[in-house]
Amino acid sequence: MDPRQLPIGIFDSGVGGLTVLRALRAALPGEDFLYLGDTARVPYGTRSPETVRRYASQAAGLLLARGIKALVVACNTASAAALDTLREAHPDVPVEGVIEPGARAAVAASRKARVAVLATEGTVAGGAYPRAIRALDTEIEVEQRACAMLVALAEEGWTDGPVVEETLRRYFHGLFPGPDVLLLGCTHFPVLAAAIRAVAPEDVALVDSAATTAAAVRDDLAARGLLRDGGAGRVHFLVTDNPARFERTATIFLGENPAHGEIELVDIQAAR
Amino acid sequence: MDPRQLPIGIFDSGVGGLTVLRALRAALPGEDFLYLGDTARVPYGTRSPETVRRYASQAAGLLLARGIKALVVACNTASAAALDTLREAHPDVPVEGVIEPGARAAVAASRKARVAVLATEGTVAGGAYPRAIRALDTEIEVEQRACAMLVALAEEGWTDGPVVEETLRRYFHGLFPGPDVLLLGCTHFPVLAAAIRAVAPEDVALVDSAATTAAAVRDDLAARGLLRDGGAGRVHFLVTDNPARFERTATIFLGENPAHGEIELVDIQAAR
Repeated sequence: MDPRQLPIGIFDSGVGGLTVLRALRAALPGEDFLYLGDTARVPYGTRSPETVRRYASQAAGLLLARGIKALVVACNTASAAALDTLREAHPDVPVEGVIEPGARAAVAASRKARVAVLATEGTVAGGAYPRAIRALDTEIEVEQRACAMLVALAEEGWTDGPVVEETLRRYFHGLFPGPDVLLLGCTHFPVLAAAIRAVAPEDVALVDSAATTAAAVRDDLAARGLLRDGGAGRVHFLVTDNPARFERTATIFLGENPAHGEIELVDIQAAR
Repeated sequence: MDPRQLPIGIFDSGVGGLTVLRALRAALPGEDFLYLGDTARVPYGTRSPETVRRYASQAAGLLLARGIKALVVACNTASAAALDTLREAHPDVPVEGVIEPGARAAVAASRKARVAVLATEGTVAGGAYPRAIRALDTEIEVEQRACAMLVALAEEGWTDGPVVEETLRRYFHGLFPGPDVLLLGCTHFPVLAAAIRAVAPEDVALVDSAATTAAAVRDDLAARGLLRDGGAGRVHFLVTDNPARFERTATIFLGENPAHGEIELVDIQAAR
């Protein structure tokens, strides 16, 4: 088979990666996508790095066995813990994560060289964002906040109102003034962008990884001659548990309803 | 070995079951406990019933292989989905869940025959509490609310303040007046009892499963001649991921710090 005709594989612990899928579809409207949400084991953000690496390896193996031309790790926790492992294990496949593109977007947006990162406990503890940002600019100061409640709010669909506002005020306590960029370091957080915008100081820029990740994937595929010409791309969804719940919550993150017949339940442990 | 000397096995998806362990230790101070938190796969509340049954069977198998004289399923989601399966699979072992004891506590507390149940999405969808309550009293009306955010709040340790109050107000919308009993149908929720008490109407009684479950286990062991005499009981903890995080969050639920050396990391998938 012509490798250009293969879909782009993308995985996340659940629905959060759909914000990245949305940006990928906008940047690459002619491509097919195979999206895997590991809903049997979501969330990754509170797991140990070893466990996240094992889960990510299983997810990558499942997608590669189906046939994909590139792999996007659309989960900050998995990108931080497992990207190097996945690239070593699959040297022939372009593998893109969301950490480095997010770091680039933050560095480009900051005039004061002070960036605040909101992420999960696992991403914060691993320190991947401070490392990636300082690799681009050693002068930049980075502060982090672990914001587990924001994942729960996004999944519950509570994207505005007093609960999300009070939650943000609590996480922002003592953070401002200082940073002029707020990097949303978890793929769940873009659905809360309007509330974050309303609570954060006006002069603070909000950035996330979705658009820069999509651009990096597009450039990589173009450089390898793997872009597909024309046509309207399609998406097929794989989940490891509870397709009905995925369908219900996916709309919040994808901005559209996933086609009912396109959500397939798979056994990720058998796939190993 | 004298079976009376064996520990009581207790499992939960994570830290929530520690509220039940706390009640068990108070009711049975001379007993040893072996507590398993399946922290690699927490939470169970949003998983499908089939997945919860598989996880619960693995947890039970792991505890039974270590040697226990009784098994307590200290998780509402697992009790609702897997109790019958576990009892059939292990007919020689007393197996107690938290649903039926919780239902009994609610029925005993209600004068108006109207009970409200707060639980996870999985427990609510399965309808185990309405069934268990109506099995005790066919006249009782039961309303349920799926409260995923309360699990996240409890795990984050946000047990008071504006976020938890606004969250409760949102979940309680349209619930009162009516029920005179509020059943906390998730083992995470007792740590939020003070906030729930403050937001719920004054004449509504709060009940949970912990004390009645502990009493049921004590009575069952006594009837089988399996109670241990005297001595101070000990607890050994098993977790399937991230012992450091378990130690940190456990204090909220247990009311005391688990002994550092007593938290053991186990591989539940290898145990199958």
